[in-house]
Amino acid sequence: MTREQLVAQIRAKKSYLLVGLDSEVSKLPKHLQGKPDAVLTFNKAVIDATKDYCVGYKINTAFYESEGVKGWETMQETLEYIPKNLFTIADAKRGDIGNTSAQYARTFFETMQFDAVTVAPYMGEDSVRPFLEYQNKWTIVLGLTSNAGSQDFEQQTLANSGKQLYEVVLEKVASWGTPNNLMFVVGATKASDFSSIRNIIPNHFLLVPGIGAQGGSLEEVSSHGATPDCGLLVAASRAIIFASNGEDFAEAAAVAAKNYATEMAGYLKL
Amino acid sequence: MTREQLVAQIRAKKSYLLVGLDSEVSKLPKHLQGKPDAVLTFNKAVIDATKDYCVGYKINTAFYESEGVKGWETMQETLEYIPKNLFTIADAKRGDIGNTSAQYARTFFETMQFDAVTVAPYMGEDSVRPFLEYQNKWTIVLGLTSNAGSQDFEQQTLANSGKQLYEVVLEKVASWGTPNNLMFVVGATKASDFSSIRNIIPNHFLLVPGIGAQGGSLEEVSSHGATPDCGLLVAASRAIIFASNGEDFAEAAAVAAKNYATEMAGYLKL
Repeated sequence: MTREQLVAQIRAKKSYLLVGLDSEVSKLPKHLQGKPDAVLTFNKAVIDATKDYCVGYKINTAFYESEGVKGWETMQETLEYIPKNLFTIADAKRGDIGNTSAQYARTFFETMQFDAVTVAPYMGEDSVRPFLEYQNKWTIVLGLTSNAGSQDFEQQTLANSGKQLYEVVLEKVASWGTPNNLMFVVGATKASDFSSIRNIIPNHFLLVPGIGAQGGSLEEVSSHGATPDCGLLVAASRAIIFASNGEDFAEAAAVAAKNYATEMAGYLKL
Repeated sequence: MTREQLVAQIRAKKSYLLVGLDSEVSKLPKHLQGKPDAVLTFNKAVIDATKDYCVGYKINTAFYESEGVKGWETMQETLEYIPKNLFTIADAKRGDIGNTSAQYARTFFETMQFDAVTVAPYMGEDSVRPFLEYQNKWTIVLGLTSNAGSQDFEQQTLANSGKQLYEVVLEKVASWGTPNNLMFVVGATKASDFSSIRNIIPNHFLLVPGIGAQGGSLEEVSSHGATPDCGLLVAASRAIIFASNGEDFAEAAAVAAKNYATEMAGYLKL
């Protein structure tokens, strides 16, 4: 999917919401638990219920891998069920030496046909480059994450620039791609940091997790993080997919997603 | 597997070799290509041929995921084929926020029953902790990798300590675990750095890739990196599994593995 296509969708739906399908088996509604294909049934119902309020889905591989081969099957089937005009992200946080990263790129862009994959930057340029070689695919590199552990390394100050590690990550990685094939993960609990982030990467789309369950403010993120063509994809997972754990889970997910979309429509300047 | 059990194996085999099953489909011997279960057939033959010369196997998930669901099946079947007294590493380089890392830990320690998994440190403490909570399992955190990209971030100097990022990673992560549940990846092409690394983590086992195809020297690694109970696991992949791409691939793998083991026996002070 190109940036133009993504922006067109945001404009049409007045939403920059991504629904995170973190469909942890033990958290599924009781009436589905233990049934064959419980996760797939759950995901399909959530997708049907929310697809008009979001521009895409983020599938975190951890929740599928933990079920082994069966989980990978469910991930593949879930991806195939998502309407093709929606943006799909494998939230996989992969990264390895060059020839190995090339295999991960093949996994998510060819074997599985996601539009985007999240990548960890620790190992540097040759670990990120193979993902960037795909046409009309997106590499989403971890910048500043929303968890407490982001203080351990991401927010450490580097000697030669006085900048924090994540700022240097944004700066360097930005030079390896373009705003048309590269995005960054920026944790929503740090809305105050968005101004300095936008100084470094004024045009790149940001994937912002941490709204809802992780406590970020959608208003702050939107006012500090937006670009003229939106430039934000805000992900919410548990707050939508587990809005109810009863038989009305899909209706509750639709209500939650619609609420986000309505709020977003108020902030959107497209 | 406990540290004592691992060291006992190293002592018995006079080897600290890990064979990396980076069994990329396109690099398999011609006579296997296109056959059903080609990778599994290849892996089983390599395991049969090399298991007397190594103390374990490292399975890099990228080479399996790139084949999708079928690849995960092959990974599971390969793992099950490895004799239970050998050490098994999922070289997965995972890492995410706490509840998600817990799912990855479950994937590799429960669903798949590996002895160890490699973890990327970028996201900090809560992304690493869930792996460390398992008894008799090992978390192997990326310290200094052997690729060119290690200069981009890993080798950047931090302001408040004057240390390089990877040194701070070793130091901090070491405080979250013990030498009995935590190891570090240290790239073998940097043998000169081993002394400073051993100042920071004198007792931890190091997983050393980069011998062979990536050009590290086994002698340097062994003389600078060893602890009194060895403390090294040296991985070689392509140099062993693709030693021949003819029908004699398994015999050639055995010869290559035996050569490493013979050299290691000369360095080992156990």
